[in-house]
Amino acid sequence: MRYAVTFHPRSLTVEVEKGTTILDAAFGAGILLNSVCGGKGTCGKCRVLTRGLFDSSRPQSISDRDWERGYRLACETRIAGNGEVTVPEEAEIASHQILTSYFAENVVNLAPISAARYLQLPQPTLKDNIGDMERVVRVMGLDSGELKGTLRALKILPSILRDSDWKMTAIVDEVSRPRVLIDVRSGDASLRNYGIALDIGTTTVVLSLIDLADGRDIAQTSDYNKQIVYGEDVLSRITYAEEGGLERLNSAIVDTINSLVTRACDESEGCLGKGKKVLKNEITSMSVAGNTTMIHLFLRLDPKNIRYEPYISTVNAPPILRARDIGIDIHPDAPVYCVPGRASYVGGDITAGVIASGMYERSELSLLIDVGTNGEVVLGNSDWMVSCSCSAGPAFEGGEVTSGMRAMTGAIERVRILDNYDVKFSTIGGTRPRGICGSGLIDLLAEMFMRGIVDRKGRIQELPTHRVRRGDHCLEFVVAWGEETSPDANVGNDIVVSDDDIANIIRTKGAVYSACRVLLRNLKLGFQDVHRIYIAGGFGNYIDTERAIIIGLLPDLPFERFFFLGNSALAGGRLALLSDEKRTKARAVSDSMTYIELSTTQAFFDEFSSSLFLPHTDIEQFPTVLGLIRS
Amino acid sequence: MRYAVTFHPRSLTVEVEKGTTILDAAFGAGILLNSVCGGKGTCGKCRVLTRGLFDSSRPQSISDRDWERGYRLACETRIAGNGEVTVPEEAEIASHQILTSYFAENVVNLAPISAARYLQLPQPTLKDNIGDMERVVRVMGLDSGELKGTLRALKILPSILRDSDWKMTAIVDEVSRPRVLIDVRSGDASLRNYGIALDIGTTTVVLSLIDLADGRDIAQTSDYNKQIVYGEDVLSRITYAEEGGLERLNSAIVDTINSLVTRACDESEGCLGKGKKVLKNEITSMSVAGNTTMIHLFLRLDPKNIRYEPYISTVNAPPILRARDIGIDIHPDAPVYCVPGRASYVGGDITAGVIASGMYERSELSLLIDVGTNGEVVLGNSDWMVSCSCSAGPAFEGGEVTSGMRAMTGAIERVRILDNYDVKFSTIGGTRPRGICGSGLIDLLAEMFMRGIVDRKGRIQELPTHRVRRGDHCLEFVVAWGEETSPDANVGNDIVVSDDDIANIIRTKGAVYSACRVLLRNLKLGFQDVHRIYIAGGFGNYIDTERAIIIGLLPDLPFERFFFLGNSALAGGRLALLSDEKRTKARAVSDSMTYIELSTTQAFFDEFSSSLFLPHTDIEQFPTVLGLIRS
Repeated sequence: MRYAVTFHPRSLTVEVEKGTTILDAAFGAGILLNSVCGGKGTCGKCRVLTRGLFDSSRPQSISDRDWERGYRLACETRIAGNGEVTVPEEAEIASHQILTSYFAENVVNLAPISAARYLQLPQPTLKDNIGDMERVVRVMGLDSGELKGTLRALKILPSILRDSDWKMTAIVDEVSRPRVLIDVRSGDASLRNYGIALDIGTTTVVLSLIDLADGRDIAQTSDYNKQIVYGEDVLSRITYAEEGGLERLNSAIVDTINSLVTRACDESEGCLGKGKKVLKNEITSMSVAGNTTMIHLFLRLDPKNIRYEPYISTVNAPPILRARDIGIDIHPDAPVYCVPGRASYVGGDITAGVIASGMYERSELSLLIDVGTNGEVVLGNSDWMVSCSCSAGPAFEGGEVTSGMRAMTGAIERVRILDNYDVKFSTIGGTRPRGICGSGLIDLLAEMFMRGIVDRKGRIQELPTHRVRRGDHCLEFVVAWGEETSPDANVGNDIVVSDDDIANIIRTKGAVYSACRVLLRNLKLGFQDVHRIYIAGGFGNYIDTERAIIIGLLPDLPFERFFFLGNSALAGGRLALLSDEKRTKARAVSDSMTYIELSTTQAFFDEFSSSLFLPHTDIEQFPTVLGLIRS
Repeated sequence: MRYAVTFHPRSLTVEVEKGTTILDAAFGAGILLNSVCGGKGTCGKCRVLTRGLFDSSRPQSISDRDWERGYRLACETRIAGNGEVTVPEEAEIASHQILTSYFAENVVNLAPISAARYLQLPQPTLKDNIGDMERVVRVMGLDSGELKGTLRALKILPSILRDSDWKMTAIVDEVSRPRVLIDVRSGDASLRNYGIALDIGTTTVVLSLIDLADGRDIAQTSDYNKQIVYGEDVLSRITYAEEGGLERLNSAIVDTINSLVTRACDESEGCLGKGKKVLKNEITSMSVAGNTTMIHLFLRLDPKNIRYEPYISTVNAPPILRARDIGIDIHPDAPVYCVPGRASYVGGDITAGVIASGMYERSELSLLIDVGTNGEVVLGNSDWMVSCSCSAGPAFEGGEVTSGMRAMTGAIERVRILDNYDVKFSTIGGTRPRGICGSGLIDLLAEMFMRGIVDRKGRIQELPTHRVRRGDHCLEFVVAWGEETSPDANVGNDIVVSDDDIANIIRTKGAVYSACRVLLRNLKLGFQDVHRIYIAGGFGNYIDTERAIIIGLLPDLPFERFFFLGNSALAGGRLALLSDEKRTKARAVSDSMTYIELSTTQAFFDEFSSSLFLPHTDIEQFPTVLGLIRS
């Protein structure tokens, strides 16, 4: 028998077999309910309001009165007919809530990198006989020397003024000093002025086309960084550059960006209406966030010294450049701003994350964790900031894991393991599974640990299930059988996770956690002192906080202290594109932030060794997990 | 009989015929003695000290005692044997004194547009791990954001630092904000940094190659502006540009400049020593002064609107540009600074003249007169400045005058007419005469007036000399006979000045004088209120003040109030190249100076009509000349 259950307030309906728990049904609908205890009915966090036929018995955590109203624990309640479930805010895991929260916190007073100003100039007379450019400067209320024109703009200025009755729009680079008049247009064109926020990731490049008149997004495009063919990670790209490949790497990223620009312009009609497509010449500024190596390659600067101790970049705060100087196909004189970084391994992407989080504005302590092949951590508040980075390995981005893959269509992103070791999962895009992305691996390892499939060292146990088997070198656990996988993948190949895979995942989570600990201990602080933890990274579209705590990636703190930033490099770059104040902050952050080199400190290696357990050698650091294990 | 006479303190010796006056002998030696009375022995200004055989009788103006010591009037004393003459300072006309005087007054604290700084950087360590560029910024004592690197400089910075033991020279554009690191060199190259001061005249372009380490001149080259083939004056160039010739005009001036740069580099060995020639890449900044039209053509900006009422330029204070952007063959990122102008007909060349004169620094009133096809006048002091321009015509530059020519080899530059109407002259370079330049025309007209060859209206009188004859249309006066002229000129053609020529000269001098008068009267002032008069212009290497007063070009003021600036555009451009303070002043002057349009004011035409006499309709304005006429 199958029944329909509708989840409110999102109004998502799923059909499920009779006897399915509400927790599992919600999972099927794409709703992640809190369940720290792993669905054992003990934590009481998955409380929902039901209407319809459900089987359940009242647990202690629900009062008689609430029971009568229809409150149930989702993990303990099974579906017995069609019904409706209302999910209270606190019961759902905050996977996407951040996108709203941090934008709400970062309301921007629009002061974009390039502004369009409509000007009506008094006509010159014999008595009022200053030059055309001086007339523009005066009507803008500036002193001479506060605005200069490019030769391109000066060439067309006289005829634009005289052909359009002295009504013109000035396109001004607002970040250079003096400001630069980069273009002039006839009449009022102040509502046709666009900018780009760009996140140059080692793997993926994401572009937002933004209306500079009101700050709204017009289109967003993304693609693989075409440099990938020359190496998957930062170090292999540097090696390739050293071997004479710098120009090819530069061309690859410039090509990637230019094709994203073309696509974004094409897609802009969807937002602006037919025939109102954004022209490339109307894109008059660009804000770029990326790690230090990506920025070097983008600017065709040799990244060599980033690789060798003492790990020195050529420049952390690049100059404002012109689009034409770096081959970007937008307005040729558009200023290109790179969010400044602090060090070779704490780049502008991290500064952008700090800006997106707003942590620099609060007096309470915050911790920003960016999980990637290189893990970066920033600790601080409105008064000070300390940062470090660690080599975490590519496990959460799909590397060094047998069935690992990047967070894209077909990636298993959510996993639950049942008592009988059966595996339930969902994939990005809802297709057949092709592999497992970072968030899937976090879920998988946490579930395996909670079900006793791995021990605290992360070793797979020989259990009475055909899902545990001996692979080529070691034991492995089958997540999905060959017949479940996508026909266009390696059909017949099971999706598995092995002892070796798990060791890599544990090394990654251990490095990130250890970096946080060392940074805190350097300042004689502990996790309990941290009021907010911001998470950024490329594991996937979301991260399940409780499971990340279970494996010891994140510290054992109340859920409400965690905030997910999504693509924080893009978000910070977007804020820098739109706000003078945010750009000033970005410079202040990159200037004042202390950087601690971990790769040579004994304390880090000690911490790292202790963290190669689930959740940690010192399990007292994870009281919640300890409670779950004991229950 | 011929005798040798030596003139002190210059130690110049000439051989002359017995009976020659000391005045004429001095003239032959290139020394101009004061003789307001025209050699009649009445003014007493040509008093010199003699030793040797001279024939003379004591005039009233010399005391018995001085007579015994050897003092004589040069105009009244004839050579009777070998002898020596000492010329007191006050007896010699101040034709070149200015070159020393204005440089003495403009001692510059060196702060050039581009500076070379030798830096020794501490090597990076794991604890001191900022980027290479940030390290340069720090060692220079700047804040982040106060210095940016060009991509070219950033590309080579890491290897320069590491290959030269962290000792480098930073070449910094000091005028942009942020400052720009335009190049880096290994080790200490701070003494190999050069700049260019450039005067772009409508006719002639002059370039000074300057050592930016100490401000001294390394080489000076000049040539015709190659635009001349497209029109001799500003208006004809604008017309040519309007007819599609803008690019050709631009190429012509860029070619002119680039060949001057090449020559200056070649000639630099003469100053710096063999093998130490200045390389083009070592020229890291350029300061340009020119009239507004010349600057437009230099920047390839359309000058069209300069020509039509209300005479508006595209820009008076051009932006700082890069050499590569305008095709100048020096360091590609060298900043190119144009001295800012005030209006279409009071350009950066005039601002440069104001800066060279130092008149903006003095509380007493000064008047700057730049005589050219376009005459510009600036009146003011340290508190205020007023300027105007007038269309003076090209007479003093050799135009619209039968035998007129520019101030170049073979031009008659000094003229004296004897009682018997015989003409004595000297030419530039001492060659046979080919024509008459501006200073020669001033001398000529003054002499003709004083000898009664022309009347007060400038009409040639029918006199009993074969030098006065009827030409094609009107009377003319023969300055040099065909057989005296250079063989490579029109041999056989006499060098003459006609009634029509004189009318043109009078219009030119009248326009300049009238512009000064109107400017003064606008402020209810007269010439007597003016403490210093600075003269600039292209009449030749010098100007004979007293003769310029006689024809009514200059006002009738004591000689000590006149100062000759020579090439004031070049001198001011040179100061702007070397001094931040002078650049600030140049902007302040061009910003604050009032510009009065004369071409439409009745007062100017009234003044102009009255000035079409010798020296003026209202001869009371010229009491000295009145005295000479009456004597």
